[in-house]
This record gives sequence, structure tokens and C-alpha cells, in this order.
Amino acid sequence: MRIGIVGVGTVGSGVIEIIEERQELWKNQGINLEIVALAAKSMDELVGFEGKDYKLCTDVNEIIADPSIDVFVELVGGYELPKQWIKTALENGKHVVTANKALIAKHGAELFPLAKEKSLQILFEAAVGGGIPIIRTLQEGMTGNTVEHLSCIINGTCNYILSRMTREGISYPDVLAEAQKLGYAEADPTFDVEGIDSAHKLAILASLSSGTFVDFEKIHVSGISQISATDIEFAQEFGCVIKLLGIYSRQGDRVDARVHACFVPEDHLLASINGVLNGVYLEGDNLGPALQTGAGAGKLPTASAVVADLAFLARSQNRIPIPMDCFNENNTADLVPINELKTRYYFRFTTKDARGVLASITSILSKNEISIESIVQKNVKDPHKVSVVVITEKVLESNVAQALREIDALEAVTEPSRTIRFL
Amino acid sequence: MRIGIVGVGTVGSGVIEIIEERQELWKNQGINLEIVALAAKSMDELVGFEGKDYKLCTDVNEIIADPSIDVFVELVGGYELPKQWIKTALENGKHVVTANKALIAKHGAELFPLAKEKSLQILFEAAVGGGIPIIRTLQEGMTGNTVEHLSCIINGTCNYILSRMTREGISYPDVLAEAQKLGYAEADPTFDVEGIDSAHKLAILASLSSGTFVDFEKIHVSGISQISATDIEFAQEFGCVIKLLGIYSRQGDRVDARVHACFVPEDHLLASINGVLNGVYLEGDNLGPALQTGAGAGKLPTASAVVADLAFLARSQNRIPIPMDCFNENNTADLVPINELKTRYYFRFTTKDARGVLASITSILSKNEISIESIVQKNVKDPHKVSVVVITEKVLESNVAQALREIDALEAVTEPSRTIRFL
Repeated sequence: MRIGIVGVGTVGSGVIEIIEERQELWKNQGINLEIVALAAKSMDELVGFEGKDYKLCTDVNEIIADPSIDVFVELVGGYELPKQWIKTALENGKHVVTANKALIAKHGAELFPLAKEKSLQILFEAAVGGGIPIIRTLQEGMTGNTVEHLSCIINGTCNYILSRMTREGISYPDVLAEAQKLGYAEADPTFDVEGIDSAHKLAILASLSSGTFVDFEKIHVSGISQISATDIEFAQEFGCVIKLLGIYSRQGDRVDARVHACFVPEDHLLASINGVLNGVYLEGDNLGPALQTGAGAGKLPTASAVVADLAFLARSQNRIPIPMDCFNENNTADLVPINELKTRYYFRFTTKDARGVLASITSILSKNEISIESIVQKNVKDPHKVSVVVITEKVLESNVAQALREIDALEAVTEPSRTIRFL
Repeated sequence: MRIGIVGVGTVGSGVIEIIEERQELWKNQGINLEIVALAAKSMDELVGFEGKDYKLCTDVNEIIADPSIDVFVELVGGYELPKQWIKTALENGKHVVTANKALIAKHGAELFPLAKEKSLQILFEAAVGGGIPIIRTLQEGMTGNTVEHLSCIINGTCNYILSRMTREGISYPDVLAEAQKLGYAEADPTFDVEGIDSAHKLAILASLSSGTFVDFEKIHVSGISQISATDIEFAQEFGCVIKLLGIYSRQGDRVDARVHACFVPEDHLLASINGVLNGVYLEGDNLGPALQTGAGAGKLPTASAVVADLAFLARSQNRIPIPMDCFNENNTADLVPINELKTRYYFRFTTKDARGVLASITSILSKNEISIESIVQKNVKDPHKVSVVVITEKVLESNVAQALREIDALEAVTEPSRTIRFL
């Protein structure tokens, strides 16, 4: 199988390294992988790959127009250019392997129907969960199951930050600064910490799980930048840890898909997934609960997932393609609007230590049909910053929004309320 | 794809149930599964499957000789008869799907070369870890990796017993009796509690991981029947839990494969796999550490793994078969003999509270080059049953055997020493 690769950055160079190291070993395993061409923005990026019999180019068209190439490997990232390249590659009869979750989430519904029409495969194991084989598990391992629920930790940056906040009691800005220094967070961390990257990945997992197209744009997303050390401490008091989760479940004919921080009970399998590890927990109707965990990012874990796709494809050129009708706009999931959600809640109110404030808060909650499971008031040094924490029973999201507006308007409440849902 | 199934017990009936429920759904997914014939020992077992257009028979030859059947599904268990059936099925050009770990471990090296010769597949996802897709992960997901280490909890009965002993401080015989009452343990539990079932499964995982044939007969096996509540308590004092593990690692050109109880640190991913759950932890050279967990047994989890194999095969009839040269006697792994193993140890000696016994024990250990990391002596009510617990540094197995012989011969030592290795 002849391969052309665009992108020789971290993941791309890892892929080349693994293939060069193992291609001899694979030959008697039915896997014959041959790198034919590499493309990058400039010849400078291709320094180090000369003298290896690879065609080096700065024009991706030299790869996607080359009829001798069987597979186009896209490892650049971004949306528009890669979409165009992949469309042309498919039109020219090439299979595609990519690690680009943003592209799959955003343009999958345009690309997969084209691949189907051409009887070609787009494989993307590396797009979610790095080296964890969760994509193939959902595509093939779960054929005998309906995935009824899936919750996942799929952003290593957020999980690293929350894990350190939990273990060491450090504040969010301090951990973020250190994560940036260590290379675990970008200079502009918005994409990770605000949950956008997780939402791309959840859209993919939810589409595969539901068999219908879950549109990334419609997923409710919030991040972790508002989580404080105080919230982490309260979570521990209630026997929980805070995790940023992607959550999918079936609700009759509709799909519930959302990304937000969650209180996760300490004995849940996801609670012990710490640091930069990713984890995907799912419940199948026949399988019951199951979990996969491993490195969600990094050069070699991600590269080894790209290589697994290539090896799979090498054996599968005459195989019936894995159907991807879950990325087709004619087959779009009906998403449950977030304000119809019913869930348990953690509220933290910051108040002046004024008599009567507790009564005002509880009466507003009660008026909005929010039942309280427990309530804790902490006396702290600053009498203008008393924490009142409420754990609710299952309550309706739209009632929560209304109640919080009323509570935040109270004169005795000195900071905006903080809320975190339970898993 | 036309299927014949022998065995309509727990797993077999689950497979039929899932296929009947989903076959319509699968038709536009490239998966066309049709059950053609069912075989069982007697027609009595086939009651309930009449009037469904299935050919019902008590002679398996009616399935394996039928040229219209593409896949032979063996769900009976046992060794000799299934081996003969599968050989004949392969000779007659049929793919094979089985859940029979004992058969694969014991006769795989005879069956897989025959399948290769005929360009047919034997799939066995259900043989290890029930519904966890660990077999396909090792066969295809890890192509870009060398599995350097694998440790697994692959016997639900043992894990249930040890988990309850840990959580509730109950003794081994009491938990076993309850497990038998609940159906988690057989009337004769030897196969499970002595580690034989785990060794069958480890032989399979170690063969797939190493790419060489790991002979089940040569794996060092010990079980959990000697583990006492006292050992569990001491483990907790040292920040560990006790698990029955299958362990595989590469040692240069040789393979280390063994099944025994282990001290597992509480923060290790395997430590939180409790009850009847199974878990497989592995380390790939590129992937790093990863874990899969889920139901290791039970009707529907196991049946859903069999169904996943059938669905995979339905798409793969024109695919290059997954190579299984790891089950070939000409490609047998060189196993590290257990007495060459170097590992940390927990020893528990039971002594009379006699002056000098501690000095005798430590001097025997020292003479046998066993370095002590820590030593604890517990005063208990019965002065003839004092527990002396030693945690060693990494020591050579053959030295351990010699030292224990000498210590057990001491007049002051009143019970045989107990030993558990560290993970």
C-alpha cells in the first residue's frame, strides 16, 4: 500500500519513524506499507527526510493527484484546506487517514458520504483519545451492543489541571501557568480549557454511538476556567472529584450530548483517570459498563494510532467498508436542548454573612421547584465571603437558570453563583 | 454470511438472541448474518428454537459438512471434540468463531496453522475478558506498538472473592461459599481459584503480545486459596490490594509469563478493578500505559463479543486474514523459568513468640541474599501465632525457595510461610 503524507510535525514525524522501524517486520503479516511522498508548507520542514527515496514536495496536489498513491494521510490540522485535499483525494480514489478531530467533527458530514459513494474509507483512530483504540471499538467491537451511555475525559490539558488542583490544592491560574511552562497547555489555552476540543471529540463519539449525525455546533459546551480550589474542596467533602466530561446518552429517540465539568463520585471508574490520561467509559445494553484509558495525546501514542489505521487498511483493501452513515446530514440526531436536562447540581453562593440570606436562597430554590439534598455553610475569615453550598436532587435545567438569576440579584450575594453538574 | 452454531447454552442462546434482534438493523451496514443451523447434544436442549427456520440437529457433522454454511460457531467448551470439529470445519472451508479459551490455549498451535493454510480466520474475542475488545486490540490496534508489559485481572470469580475479602474483611472460605451460592463460583471452584482459567487466558494474551507461541503448560501458576484475611490486612498496611494477576513481559529474547496473587499498589489502575469486572493493563513502547476494563463473563457480554466477531467477519470475507503465527509450535517463546525471576516479596511467618526467632529469620534471609525493605511483628492474642511480616527488595526466586525451606524448618515457626509477590 503506497502512502503519501501531508504534515511532518510532531505526529507526522512519529508516523514516519514507526513505519520505518517496523515495515520489514510487517511484511509477513499481510501489511505492506510504503511511504512514497511527504508534503509540507516549506522545504525547510522537510529537512532530515532527504535521501530516503521519498518524494518531497510543498504542493499537496502532487500527492493527491498521484495515481500510484493508495492512501492520503492528513496530519496538518485546520479545517478548510484539509477538507479540500481530502475531497480531491477521495475523488481520485484514495483512502484517507487523519488525526484531525476538528475536521471530522465539522466537515465529516460532507466527507463520509463522498467516501461511501466511492467505496473508500476515512479512518481516524488518532482523532479521539490518542492511542486508545476507542474509534474501532465503537465501529466494530460494539456491533452487538447499543451504546446507551458514554462519558469521557478526552482533553489531557483539562484533566492535568483538574488533577493537580485536586491533589495539591493549587489554584486554577497557578496550575495553568505551570501547565503552559511544561507544554501541557498552549499559550492561548481557550480551545482546551473552554471545552471546544472536547466537544469536537464528543461529537465524533456521540455520532458513532448513536448511529446518527451529532452536530458539533449544537452541543452544549462549558469549560473549566471558572472552577476554583474551593469547588474542588467541596467536591471532596461530598466524596467526589471534578472532571471535565463529554457526556452522551440516548433519551428515547433523542440524543443528549454535552461537555461540562462534573462532580464524579470517587468510586466511579473515571474518577481515577488522572493527569494527562484520557478515559472513555461506556455502557452497552449487552456489555454493561466498560472503560478504556491511556495516553490521549503525545507524539508516539498518537502516531501509533495513525499507524494502526494504516495497517488495518493494508489488510482491508478488499473489505466491505465500515459504514459511516452517522456522518450524514440526512441522518441528523435530534439533540435534547440543555434546558430540558434533569440532573443533580452543586451550587456555590458567596454571600455576606447576613442574617436571612440562607432563608432567601432556600425560598428562591423552593419557588423554582429545586429540591435540596444537602446544604453546607462555611465560616471563613472574610465575613463578606461566606460560601453557601447546595447539593440538589435531580432538577430541571431551565428552573436552575431562573433561580440563579434571582439569587445573584440578592443584595447579600457578593459574587456570581458557581454551578457544577453531577455525572 | 451463513452461520451454524454448536452449543445453545448460556452464551449460545445469547448470541442467537442478539442476532435475531439486530440482523435487520445490520443489513445496510454491510453485515448480513443468517443463522442456518443449531446443534446440541440432544433435541431437548433445542426446545424453544423450533419454527424459526433453523435446521436443528444433534450431530455437529450436519453443520461442518454443509457446504452452504460459511462460519462454524463453537460454543460448547471442552478440548477434544471441539478441536476435531474445528479442524473439519476449516478443512471444509469454513471460518470459525469460538469463545473457548481452554481450546485456543491448548490446541491453538494445531488449529491456527491449518487456518492459515486454508486462508481462513479463527476469531475468539469472547475467549478472554468477555465483552472487552482486548483480542482485536492486540491483533490490530497495537500494530504500531511492541507490547512490553501486560498485567491482567481475567478471572471474575477470583476478583470477586478478593474484592469482598478486602472490602469486608471476610475469610476466604466464607466468601467462596457465598460466591458459590450467588453463582459466581462453581461447585468445584478449582479451575478458577487455582489460576488455571487465568493461565489459559494469559497464554492467549501473551502469545498475541509477543508474536510467539506461549505454551500454557509452561506458565507458572498459583491461585488464591492460600490468601488469608491477615494477608489482606497487611497488604492494606503497605498501601496495596491483593489481586490474582496474569503477567506478561518481554525479557530480551525471552518471555516472562506467570499467574499468581500480587500486591498491587492502591494507586495502580488495576487496583480499582473490583468485583466480577476484568481488566487488562498494558504498556506499549509507543502508546505507554493503557487499560481496558469491563464485564469478563456473563451471558450477554460474552455473546456480544461473539457477535462482534461474526459482524467483523461478515465485512472481512475478502480481507487479508489477521496473521496468527503466534500460535505455531515452530515459533515457540522461550519462557523465563520462574526461579530466575527477580521480584519484591511479601513473606508472612507464623512463629512462637520466642526470643531469637526474629534473629534466626533475618540471618537466614541475609545468608540467602534476600534484602529486607521492612519488617513488621504483630503481637496477637495467641502467643504461639505471632505474625512476622517481611517486605523484601527485588530478590531472586531461587534464593526465596531455599530461604523459606530453612525458615519453615525452624522449631519456633509454627505454620508454613505464606508468600505473595509484588506487581
